Amino acid sequence: VAGDQNQSVMSPRTAARRVECARAVGYDIRLTTGSVSLIGQQLADAVGERRALIVTTPTVNAVVTQPIVSAASQQLRRQLPVLIVAGGEERKTHDSVEAIADAALLSDLDRTAVLVGIGGGVCLDLVTMAASSIRRGLSHIRVPTTLVGLVDAGVGIKGALNFRGRKSYIGCYCPPELVLLNQAFLATLPDRHFRAGLAEIVKMAIIADAELFALLEREPLFTTEHFALRRGQSDTIVWRSVACLLDELESNLFEDLPGERLADFGHTFSPVIESASAFSVLHGEAVAVDIALSTELAAILGILSCDTRDRIRAVLRHLSLPLSSPFLTLPRCLESLDAARRHRRCKLNLIVPAAIGTGFCLVEGTEISDALLRGALAVLAQDLVVR
Amino acid sequence: VAGDQNQSVMSPRTAARRVECARAVGYDIRLTTGSVSLIGQQLADAVGERRALIVTTPTVNAVVTQPIVSAASQQLRRQLPVLIVAGGEERKTHDSVEAIADAALLSDLDRTAVLVGIGGGVCLDLVTMAASSIRRGLSHIRVPTTLVGLVDAGVGIKGALNFRGRKSYIGCYCPPELVLLNQAFLATLPDRHFRAGLAEIVKMAIIADAELFALLEREPLFTTEHFALRRGQSDTIVWRSVACLLDELESNLFEDLPGERLADFGHTFSPVIESASAFSVLHGEAVAVDIALSTELAAILGILSCDTRDRIRAVLRHLSLPLSSPFLTLPRCLESLDAARRHRRCKLNLIVPAAIGTGFCLVEGTEISDALLRGALAVLAQDLVVR
Repeated sequence: VAGDQNQSVMSPRTAARRVECARAVGYDIRLTTGSVSLIGQQLADAVGERRALIVTTPTVNAVVTQPIVSAASQQLRRQLPVLIVAGGEERKTHDSVEAIADAALLSDLDRTAVLVGIGGGVCLDLVTMAASSIRRGLSHIRVPTTLVGLVDAGVGIKGALNFRGRKSYIGCYCPPELVLLNQAFLATLPDRHFRAGLAEIVKMAIIADAELFALLEREPLFTTEHFALRRGQSDTIVWRSVACLLDELESNLFEDLPGERLADFGHTFSPVIESASAFSVLHGEAVAVDIALSTELAAILGILSCDTRDRIRAVLRHLSLPLSSPFLTLPRCLESLDAARRHRRCKLNLIVPAAIGTGFCLVEGTEISDALLRGALAVLAQDLVVR
Repeated sequence: VAGDQNQSVMSPRTAARRVECARAVGYDIRLTTGSVSLIGQQLADAVGERRALIVTTPTVNAVVTQPIVSAASQQLRRQLPVLIVAGGEERKTHDSVEAIADAALLSDLDRTAVLVGIGGGVCLDLVTMAASSIRRGLSHIRVPTTLVGLVDAGVGIKGALNFRGRKSYIGCYCPPELVLLNQAFLATLPDRHFRAGLAEIVKMAIIADAELFALLEREPLFTTEHFALRRGQSDTIVWRSVACLLDELESNLFEDLPGERLADFGHTFSPVIESASAFSVLHGEAVAVDIALSTELAAILGILSCDTRDRIRAVLRHLSLPLSSPFLTLPRCLESLDAARRHRRCKLNLIVPAAIGTGFCLVEGTEISDALLRGALAVLAQDLVVR
């Protein structure tokens, strides 16, 4: 009798019922060009009458968080409490989530309260995890202050903790109510972290937006100062990248539907680089290396023309991103492909470029031999051009 | 420009986009009358080819879990791994979730794997929390082995941890894929815990099922032996209670829609009794005290007839459940009402009986004075009948 829909059936041997529910989720992403104090006003408008707790990291607190919170508190005529949590991948633990829960208790947050994360990927991951579990779910608002946060980590619905050296082994899907994007926050970002963020933009351009790729090729300089000076241009780059990512994510936000995910491009070999380097290689740097390798594989397999492969490599060089890493050895490549198969429910689903703006999904059955990988790694290590 | 649906808009000052998604969830609940080994076969059918990890507690391991896992492993021709976690409310912590995550790593669980919780409320809470966060969500199956588990904790979608002495301060909504109900598991349940479980059945009977209430009144004896001997009768009691609860929960499974929730009956004053007693008062015992108090308040306010109030008290006595508790003082009652207002988004929504089988929601504005509460507490402490 099992499987009957929405009714209770009782027989001498068994009773069965199926519960069904559709949960609607939605959230807003806004890019503004205003100053930091304008963001404070937007934040105050969003928080309204609710209790709130701001969570931020020491690096951005003085320059970004304090001005925003000050403007918001002034408009709301009450001081919003701020919790400063330490940054760093090694802090993405349940202990850090509990530190936020302690502050939530101290600030007497009720179920209508809102958590506000102002910071980079680590801060936003922790706030998302805390929001997903405190009182079985608080609302949260994200204000990313890194380029990776602006174009990637901040705009999706995932939160994560690391566990026993495994990146994001513990995690959640928890949509924010609002994401406030503003490039004014990038002013404090170290140049290396800024460049790492560009890798996620390159990723989206290659698989989904040829015009964005052309913008990246044409933009003369990639530094935070230059981005700030050419605000119209850089806002367009950021927003196109965000829009492409959301187009990819929206149809399978909770990753519970089958099918390829183009946004996985650059994320097959990168996790092992990060963990093998004990996170000394930044996420975006690892993604750049992954993009270079996946692109090389596509060229060797004849899926991608050599000219296009060269354009992709040239853009990575133009953005001062790495093409190879000593941490990405052949055994780690094989390990990554194996992990991808298991992670992606027994399917390889390796995304490679087929052209600029077009991703291609290598399904199970494509042979990626040791020799193929060894060749690609050697070519990239020396930045050779093989035709 | 904010709020535009599913499109990207770029203007000189702002760009905005809204992401929308509906996530469908569903799960099956099955009550069987077969033996423990039959449950093992059902479990094996459900697990199939997937990797699995069984999580259980020491108290039920030998008598319930081992026979089930043995039957399931035999059918699957592979040994299913078992993790034994300590029981007790004080173990509902992130540390216990991490113990499950460690075992998941050891058993090499991939994203298609399934966690199986075999145990009481604490075990199922931990498994639900682990399933909601390991690898951003594993599937899970619940096999409740307590009466509270069978009729309440096991059939909903919530998981919880306690935090800084606050019951369920950390929690999640995470539907299982399957719940297997079978009264054979109750054989090992201490009598006091069995009776505590009856309180949740009384709760559902009072607010939603007059016929179930009559069954409780007529049933001569409430012990696990008696329940086992009169299996047809007791299965009907359990299934009616489950069906009533699911009717209540299904329309607002994630508790994110506004409105009263009849299943909150008996759960306004009970949390403070549990925490004030350091969990020496069982959840069901606290619920019984709450039912008695809410019923008395309804009688005093003229919502419930005195005859019906007497029938409710008589059933609680018939089931050997408490009507009062030294831990439920007047200040704690007031604190509970205040917490309920905050928990239920600033609305009182105190559920009281209006008749047998009919719940009534006291909305904000109803005055529940100190004198009223003091009177009701005094009457119940002495089990007086006031008309």
